[in-house]
Amino acid sequence: MVTSKGGISLTISVENLKVNFKTLEEFKKFKEYGIQELSMHEDLEANIIEDNSKSPFYGIYFGDKLIARMSLYEINEKYDRYFYPPQNYLELWKLEVIPEYQGKGYGSALVEFAKSLGLPIKTNPRVKSKEFWEKMGFLSVDYDMERDRGENPLVWYPEGVKAQEY
Amino acid sequence: MVTSKGGISLTISVENLKVNFKTLEEFKKFKEYGIQELSMHEDLEANIIEDNSKSPFYGIYFGDKLIARMSLYEINEKYDRYFYPPQNYLELWKLEVIPEYQGKGYGSALVEFAKSLGLPIKTNPRVKSKEFWEKMGFLSVDYDMERDRGENPLVWYPEGVKAQEY
Repeated sequence: MVTSKGGISLTISVENLKVNFKTLEEFKKFKEYGIQELSMHEDLEANIIEDNSKSPFYGIYFGDKLIARMSLYEINEKYDRYFYPPQNYLELWKLEVIPEYQGKGYGSALVEFAKSLGLPIKTNPRVKSKEFWEKMGFLSVDYDMERDRGENPLVWYPEGVKAQEY
Repeated sequence: MVTSKGGISLTISVENLKVNFKTLEEFKKFKEYGIQELSMHEDLEANIIEDNSKSPFYGIYFGDKLIARMSLYEINEKYDRYFYPPQNYLELWKLEVIPEYQGKGYGSALVEFAKSLGLPIKTNPRVKSKEFWEKMGFLSVDYDMERDRGENPLVWYPEGVKAQEY
């Protein structure tokens, strides 16, 4: 993605994050550090996952510093309860930009990257970020307690995809 | 629940919250107000749910003011991916105490109420509340990306129940 601001042109590149101790150390700067990261750390230490293998995280570096990230996971069609026709879709979570770098388009760049993969997307954002997601073209679903259980799911439909009747 | 503090004894009673416009208005004071509450509001207005019917929310009143709440939903055994033997369990979400009333045992009273129902419990708390949940006897699960997708599940096992091998 190229953004232009006051004549300075900036290229933002999104890349898959490799599982290694450096990445896991950088993850600690993010608020939503949790059991997923702890589990990756343990698996790496126990050689259950290989050093520098592909992770479900994508991120943006500023120099050698990780300043934004998200996790993307492809859900199989057979578990799809959101889209019609039912199909593989992406679940997106832990989208987060380090505070000093917020408001500069890094979050949008990550979401645009996810959309470029061509699959429908579901996310369960924090309540206060709704405006951002609307700007990115995400829509609310019809709440279903059995399926959504207190989540606030937002979805993005690529062309030709609509809501699953539920 | 009875707590005693400096000679004053206080009875906290947890009750099921009825769906009506007064309750829904009180819900707006809670940070985790979202699509679930909006959907209840719409259903009530459209007479899809009856006034004063049972809701999945339980709460504590201080006088006539709702000061704490949680949502509890019983998940059928066939969807149980957390407990062994597989069984019906409670999913607990949106546990929240209004700021001025925090630190007085209201959150614990709600969780103790949930435990008193005798089923295993799963919750996906905010990262920073881990200490509270540990005090309440909740334990981390072994993270499984397919199942947990970036959640930080904590579970409570009643006697005779253990983790599902996964």
